[in-house]
Amino acid sequence: MSSNDRFESREFKVVGTRPLRPDGLDKVTGKAQFGADVTAPGMLHGAILRSPHAHAIIKKIDTKQAEKLEGVHAVVTRTDFAKDVDNTDVLDNCMAGEKALYDGHAVAAVAATSPSVARKAMKLIKVTYKVLPAVTDVDMAMGADAPILHDGMQTEGLEKKSRKPTNIAQRHEFGHGDVDAGFKQADLIVERSFTTEATHQGYIEPHACLANLGRDGRGELWCCTQGHYYVRELCADLLGLDESQLRVTASEIGGGFGGKTTVFIEPVALALARKSGRPVKIVMSRNEVFRASGPTSSSSIDVKIGVKNDGTITAAFADLRYQGGAYPGSPVEFGAMSAFACYNLENVKTIGWDVVANRPKQAAYRAPGAPMAAFAIESVVDEIAGKLRMDPIDLRLKNAAAAGTKASFGPVYSDIGLIRTLEAAKNHPHYSAPLGPNQGRGIACGFWFNFGGQTSVSLTVNADGTVGVAVGTPDIGGSRASISQMVAEELGIEYSQVRALIADTATLGFNDVTDGSRVTFATGLAAIEAARNAAKIMCERAAKTWGIPSDAVVWEDGHAKPVSSNAGDFEPLSLKDIAASAANTGGPIAGHYEINADGAGVSFSTHIADVEMDPETGRAEIKRYTVFQDAGKAIHPSYVEGQFQGGAVQGIGWALNEEYIYNKDGQLQNAGFLDYRIPVASDLPMIDAVILEVPNPGHPYGVRGVGETSIVPPLATVANAISAAAGVRMTSIPMSPPKVLEALDSVLIAEAAE
Amino acid sequence: MSSNDRFESREFKVVGTRPLRPDGLDKVTGKAQFGADVTAPGMLHGAILRSPHAHAIIKKIDTKQAEKLEGVHAVVTRTDFAKDVDNTDVLDNCMAGEKALYDGHAVAAVAATSPSVARKAMKLIKVTYKVLPAVTDVDMAMGADAPILHDGMQTEGLEKKSRKPTNIAQRHEFGHGDVDAGFKQADLIVERSFTTEATHQGYIEPHACLANLGRDGRGELWCCTQGHYYVRELCADLLGLDESQLRVTASEIGGGFGGKTTVFIEPVALALARKSGRPVKIVMSRNEVFRASGPTSSSSIDVKIGVKNDGTITAAFADLRYQGGAYPGSPVEFGAMSAFACYNLENVKTIGWDVVANRPKQAAYRAPGAPMAAFAIESVVDEIAGKLRMDPIDLRLKNAAAAGTKASFGPVYSDIGLIRTLEAAKNHPHYSAPLGPNQGRGIACGFWFNFGGQTSVSLTVNADGTVGVAVGTPDIGGSRASISQMVAEELGIEYSQVRALIADTATLGFNDVTDGSRVTFATGLAAIEAARNAAKIMCERAAKTWGIPSDAVVWEDGHAKPVSSNAGDFEPLSLKDIAASAANTGGPIAGHYEINADGAGVSFSTHIADVEMDPETGRAEIKRYTVFQDAGKAIHPSYVEGQFQGGAVQGIGWALNEEYIYNKDGQLQNAGFLDYRIPVASDLPMIDAVILEVPNPGHPYGVRGVGETSIVPPLATVANAISAAAGVRMTSIPMSPPKVLEALDSVLIAEAAE
Repeated sequence: MSSNDRFESREFKVVGTRPLRPDGLDKVTGKAQFGADVTAPGMLHGAILRSPHAHAIIKKIDTKQAEKLEGVHAVVTRTDFAKDVDNTDVLDNCMAGEKALYDGHAVAAVAATSPSVARKAMKLIKVTYKVLPAVTDVDMAMGADAPILHDGMQTEGLEKKSRKPTNIAQRHEFGHGDVDAGFKQADLIVERSFTTEATHQGYIEPHACLANLGRDGRGELWCCTQGHYYVRELCADLLGLDESQLRVTASEIGGGFGGKTTVFIEPVALALARKSGRPVKIVMSRNEVFRASGPTSSSSIDVKIGVKNDGTITAAFADLRYQGGAYPGSPVEFGAMSAFACYNLENVKTIGWDVVANRPKQAAYRAPGAPMAAFAIESVVDEIAGKLRMDPIDLRLKNAAAAGTKASFGPVYSDIGLIRTLEAAKNHPHYSAPLGPNQGRGIACGFWFNFGGQTSVSLTVNADGTVGVAVGTPDIGGSRASISQMVAEELGIEYSQVRALIADTATLGFNDVTDGSRVTFATGLAAIEAARNAAKIMCERAAKTWGIPSDAVVWEDGHAKPVSSNAGDFEPLSLKDIAASAANTGGPIAGHYEINADGAGVSFSTHIADVEMDPETGRAEIKRYTVFQDAGKAIHPSYVEGQFQGGAVQGIGWALNEEYIYNKDGQLQNAGFLDYRIPVASDLPMIDAVILEVPNPGHPYGVRGVGETSIVPPLATVANAISAAAGVRMTSIPMSPPKVLEALDSVLIAEAAE
Repeated sequence: MSSNDRFESREFKVVGTRPLRPDGLDKVTGKAQFGADVTAPGMLHGAILRSPHAHAIIKKIDTKQAEKLEGVHAVVTRTDFAKDVDNTDVLDNCMAGEKALYDGHAVAAVAATSPSVARKAMKLIKVTYKVLPAVTDVDMAMGADAPILHDGMQTEGLEKKSRKPTNIAQRHEFGHGDVDAGFKQADLIVERSFTTEATHQGYIEPHACLANLGRDGRGELWCCTQGHYYVRELCADLLGLDESQLRVTASEIGGGFGGKTTVFIEPVALALARKSGRPVKIVMSRNEVFRASGPTSSSSIDVKIGVKNDGTITAAFADLRYQGGAYPGSPVEFGAMSAFACYNLENVKTIGWDVVANRPKQAAYRAPGAPMAAFAIESVVDEIAGKLRMDPIDLRLKNAAAAGTKASFGPVYSDIGLIRTLEAAKNHPHYSAPLGPNQGRGIACGFWFNFGGQTSVSLTVNADGTVGVAVGTPDIGGSRASISQMVAEELGIEYSQVRALIADTATLGFNDVTDGSRVTFATGLAAIEAARNAAKIMCERAAKTWGIPSDAVVWEDGHAKPVSSNAGDFEPLSLKDIAASAANTGGPIAGHYEINADGAGVSFSTHIADVEMDPETGRAEIKRYTVFQDAGKAIHPSYVEGQFQGGAVQGIGWALNEEYIYNKDGQLQNAGFLDYRIPVASDLPMIDAVILEVPNPGHPYGVRGVGETSIVPPLATVANAISAAAGVRMTSIPMSPPKVLEALDSVLIAEAAE
């Protein structure tokens, strides 16, 4: 079956309703167990010693004094990990090898009977550094005279290799047509440069884990993560273990947004546990979270777009430079792929440069790489609309991608929802509402790929007629509810009869990480198929009970029924009936499904923002904000709205205030929520969320992922609104009051000079 | 497929070897987490107030003062449980209703911030009792003037009902032929009466659990149990929850032997957690374990056997009376079924009486009900051998059950191993070894049914080529090793590549309790089938890779191979190869299997004991002991030997020393290991274990359960050895020094009087 013909048009009973969230009581009463909430007898507390230098050779680590301290059970350094690993960069990032590459880079770790003893021991570890010059800016890191992080680094994807080492890890190129020819056809060309600063996912819960590992190579790990199977894979590699010997359990998770898709402290805790022979807990401080977990990339982007006077885009080009921290792997590839994904273009080209710099290795952050690209492209499109005196929605509608469009990153779209979001925005009262003084309105569009991936679901029908669903994708956005709804829908039972739970790595087949907006799509798909497999078994049990062939029984409305009156005149058997007699009809009833799911269905969004500028301070206040996004099918509309709102809020924070601030030596200056300003409830109006539903052909119910697209438009939406309100085009994110004030002043100075 | 044609004769590579136990390091280093080892933030400590009276009406419980005590978060009594439950007796036993029915019966419980506050609070609970006369002896409880425990009790299975309430809950009858006619054909009839005292399973780990339960009905329970699915079923019933909403995780278990197959403290901890809104831990003291968990029954048995002079048994009859504690459900049915199961009899009848008394509700204890019956029957058979001057093994061989024998409890045996054990015993050097002064040798046979039951197994093939096996049967006797061996055997990989783990109730389909010696048989069967399902998928993946039909690929020696050279010339793909590319060939690879397994295969054993009597003290010392038992197929011979040895040791303890001692008011006098004497290593010789293998037709490898049969013969074996050594036939268990001395004295007195 092609993934494009999975969709089945149908009426829903449970899907589309808004039942209470199953984890609600646990979370508000403190019953939910997060990463730091688990303990074990004899447990030690781990602490990690981190480099104060952004770039330094580690000449020597003397742990003797620390080891002698009463209460210290183990000190580990790089030598306590496996020698020959597949994921070298991950290991280097978790525990420095020959060099410390950023402020906060782990260089040693201690396990002791209390956190205070561990802290004391850290002070007794003597590290001899040779400090090197550091670079944290992406453009400077690309410069010919930049300090080089990795001596042997060459640029992958570059035809001509240089002998000289570089900080440019990779070059990516996407597109089709002939952009040079396209620009020649243009009546108007706008070319601009933009920068964005690194931001952190800002999850409430710091990384935390509890590790136990015997010298026989058998271990258990409890941690807050978006993907415990991937944690298992990485830790098994870094510690030299068999995957089957390491059981990883995902705790309840206090936010991830992509930042908990890899490991930081987990391999360290395991190494300490193995060495000490004791369970070891490590909990990051907020300072450590900022300095040494994975923020997203900062970026520097050039955009050039050519249009006809009627608004038709003739050519589009972008050059994107993202720093990914100390190791390769910035999301510039996604940036370059998604940059022009909203447009139907004949001539398009994007080039992406993956650059290393003396910063923590970046991690995914909600639609990784896309918001920066959209900021640049959607700002230029807005400027073009202004120059052509076209409505910005009309300009986008004129060039909008639709079914059949060849996307700039390769594939041809099937049914997509971009035009629906633009039309809905245009027709929404928000778009025509009057504006007050110093107010302006901006719009922008956003795109995200959405992913499917490897997924396993097991479902059990309990003797009392209730159903348990074991999934392997940690619930970061309400998936326990949405999966339960889909299972209840398939089995024809009440939502309250189903409980979905997260299985550990030992009790369920492999699952990719909860990321890429994949869970409601892929885990949902697998859960639906697992439910259908269970329904099939229930039909077989009914057939056995009635003494008729299995294929003469169908599952309908929560009952096994004879397929027709010819098959026999039997009273339909409910799930509860069949469950109660399962022991006598063959044993436990279960349904399983494993898949590497494709057909996730791309996602589009249009946002409208109204801002009011304070001309005295340069502060932009969001007065009204509306999100229009295609959900394919909203399983639990409240959660979908929550995703729309949450993405918008994170994007607004990124647009206006959030940023990593480094000093000239590469030391982070604002590693805490007091100095790194995320928006709080009082900073924002209620975000309006408008759900549109263009079914995804790749899912039986039409589901598309909704978690990421919503963070893509806000940077540009807010910038465009500021431009409309204040007449200044901001090209540098964050658009914090001092920067906006400076831009306003320069306009005033320019005007005064005229 | 009939369960009788599952056996496949084959050569083994992994099965039959003795790899290191996977839980060894965890247990010796303290890493293993037992029932009391888990904590949760905000956790409270629960304590249970217990009746000091063996029989009393609870007139009033005043909890007000206790609730007012600082640090007390909840006090529960019977009113805090569900009103309308299916398992009334279980609820009554966990928390008394109108009456306390035994010394130690729970009447209220407290959750407080510390164990000491909880103890203080218990003293503040005022219970007003009306004390009633109590009865603890089974024959007295059956008497016409006995105190009645349950006003409405009538005897089930009795044709003529009396209007008068009774303590006899049930009557069972088994057998065939005409025993009266059979006794008429006999040349010799021996008729004797026997009693046995209650014994406790004596597991090292007291019951312990940690419960969490929200007012939304969603909860988690961690506990040491032999069957967490049954714990879930009972707790859901007693608390009024849906099964899917209660996730039960089985901790590592420090012994069970049948005693952890039900609930005692778990529903109480859940009730306290629900009321307090906090996690609650309860850990039983050893005193509580003795007074208020489930020991086995005490019994009173009459046996009558008639034989021809050539040793042929013409008729056999037994009347068995077991007290099961305060509620119905003694294992007398199993006693009556198993009593004559070793013999091929034309005329046989057994009657079993299930009796309630003012003692804790009994729980299963290793081959529940069988050791007492075997004590009685095998003692009489021994006496007959003596009277006929026949070798006791020859007498048994003459009457031994074999394939085709109609068992006294109904079915006709297929291949069984009794004769093999008798012949092995007869030919073993032990049987002909010389005896010293005051020494005697006894033999006896034993039988156990073995069970199959509901079982679910899920198996996952990890990307690195290792395999995880999730089973739902807590490992009390080495099943993680034996299951891993069977999976490794099927998949053709190393044992070290497989890790079997116990899944919680939310992540795997239903599993019956780890009891009835069912796990290596049933979970093994399901694991083999799950492995075969995974192998089938791996063949499909190989076929896909090669572009040939699935049925052209077979799994052999750990590789997918073309079924013949006609199918194509392809290099076989190993499990590791296929695992590594799983994502690209369809996603995660798993194997699942659910079954209600039948065909467990009955089990037989013959034991030889040499004892030396101390004529001064009456103490019997075991000098040598050998167990001969049919294992069907020994998957991990060391564990099988361990089961043989463990059963023998527990049986020897039961035979010689262990007993519940009640005073006239029904209060237990020896609730601790100082006064309840279990054998320790220095009390015993090394037990020799001889494994015989008569394949069970119901299992692919021929496996039979081995855990229980080994406790059946020791009571009679030791009694017969004492009879041989000292010339006294002991008819009352335990054969403790004072009782043996008394018997010896009475012989001396009788001889002196002659």
